[in-house]
Amino acid sequence: MITSDKNKIIKDIVKLKQKKEREKANKFYIEGERIINEIPSNIHIEMYIFSEKFYNEMSDKDKYTNIKNIIVSNDVFKKISDTINPQGIMAICNIPKNSLKDVNINNNSFFIILDRICDPGNMGTIIRTAEALGVDAIFLSKGCVDLYNDKVIRATMGSIFHTNIIENCDLDILIDNLKENNVNIVCTYLEGGKPPYSINFKNATAILIGNEANGVLEKYKNKANELVKIPMIGKVESMNASISSAIIFYEVLSQRLKNN
Amino acid sequence: MITSDKNKIIKDIVKLKQKKEREKANKFYIEGERIINEIPSNIHIEMYIFSEKFYNEMSDKDKYTNIKNIIVSNDVFKKISDTINPQGIMAICNIPKNSLKDVNINNNSFFIILDRICDPGNMGTIIRTAEALGVDAIFLSKGCVDLYNDKVIRATMGSIFHTNIIENCDLDILIDNLKENNVNIVCTYLEGGKPPYSINFKNATAILIGNEANGVLEKYKNKANELVKIPMIGKVESMNASISSAIIFYEVLSQRLKNN
Repeated sequence: MITSDKNKIIKDIVKLKQKKEREKANKFYIEGERIINEIPSNIHIEMYIFSEKFYNEMSDKDKYTNIKNIIVSNDVFKKISDTINPQGIMAICNIPKNSLKDVNINNNSFFIILDRICDPGNMGTIIRTAEALGVDAIFLSKGCVDLYNDKVIRATMGSIFHTNIIENCDLDILIDNLKENNVNIVCTYLEGGKPPYSINFKNATAILIGNEANGVLEKYKNKANELVKIPMIGKVESMNASISSAIIFYEVLSQRLKNN
Repeated sequence: MITSDKNKIIKDIVKLKQKKEREKANKFYIEGERIINEIPSNIHIEMYIFSEKFYNEMSDKDKYTNIKNIIVSNDVFKKISDTINPQGIMAICNIPKNSLKDVNINNNSFFIILDRICDPGNMGTIIRTAEALGVDAIFLSKGCVDLYNDKVIRATMGSIFHTNIIENCDLDILIDNLKENNVNIVCTYLEGGKPPYSINFKNATAILIGNEANGVLEKYKNKANELVKIPMIGKVESMNASISSAIIFYEVLSQRLKNN
């Protein structure tokens, strides 16, 4: 059992809190029994870390025996955890590499493109909602909050493992590529955007969603086939990015379901 | 200038962090320049509290001169604030009293009823989205998180002041009353709910939204005219309560806008 936070394994885990260290090691960590049990087989788990308390009280130890187990004192676990009351279970995983080449484009494709989404909660919630509403792939621009930030992972509630997510996309190349493949680019835009219900989403569509404060970069917006804006009639005409995204995803799905 | 947290005014403000003390004093506090500047004239502001730093750097002191000003040391302000880096401005206000009698019911009424929503972020976001999408009044059951919880107020982004919100409703009486007035009660329900787009929302409607973990109480659900469920096609069939609420509000608004 590891009882010191000076231990090499512990120091390496703590490093993974930083994006550049995650990229260097090609690893991320994830906490909590429920989400760890959802890790699909295509993601390589390198080791499990248990707090002494969690390990001793665990009824089903067999579940974790195929992979290296590390047990640490409760105090050490508290130091590596990002939560105030850690459950006591963590997994270290390899970062999966998805690429544009793995994405199948057809007449019904439903994609989303996120341009510099900064808030981890928004990013995670958008991924979770996108999965529920049938999005086929999510493209992240450079400048988005890191997908393997623990707050993002937690906010996805496991959807991070069920969705095809391609990071660090060059949106110039991506948008041109999608357009060549007859994917309609629909950009969220506050000025001059049409309401979602008046846009045809039945064909291949990619929804382009911009940074919380500054929206989509002008040069990407100019490449879009359509601009979309949620109609708002209150005094305060603003909406959370994850809320407005969800409404548009719903409109896409509902047009397609109604059509059938 | 107040430099001690033993001061009576400071102790009274700290008490307002608790719901029962807010109810006893009929007061709440609110922090941040932007939201304070949005307080409408029908809400009585009792006093402003400034940190020494904020007060000294403030360019437009006139804005606040009609009402009692209290200046406190930066340390004392930190103690009364709920944020890690407080801006240094707080207002103490009277809790406005809205009642069902003030709500006008007509053919176009669009209401929402929240049954024991517990998470302050969800509650605040639902209020913000409801305002943006044209909800006429929001009814809160007993057992909802307190509306004047500072996290709720912050998440509303000012919408708390532009929306007619009636607290502590007895939902049995409310639902019967609305039904007698020809308001369609549409209850969010995971089993057997119809997709939003197949429900007619053009007439007077009240959307009933339940607790994040347990949904709407069975006895209220049984009174509903319709059950609604967002269609979901991902592996993880779950959605945040504020997201699913927003989607339904959008469907109501879009049916009405398309109709015109």
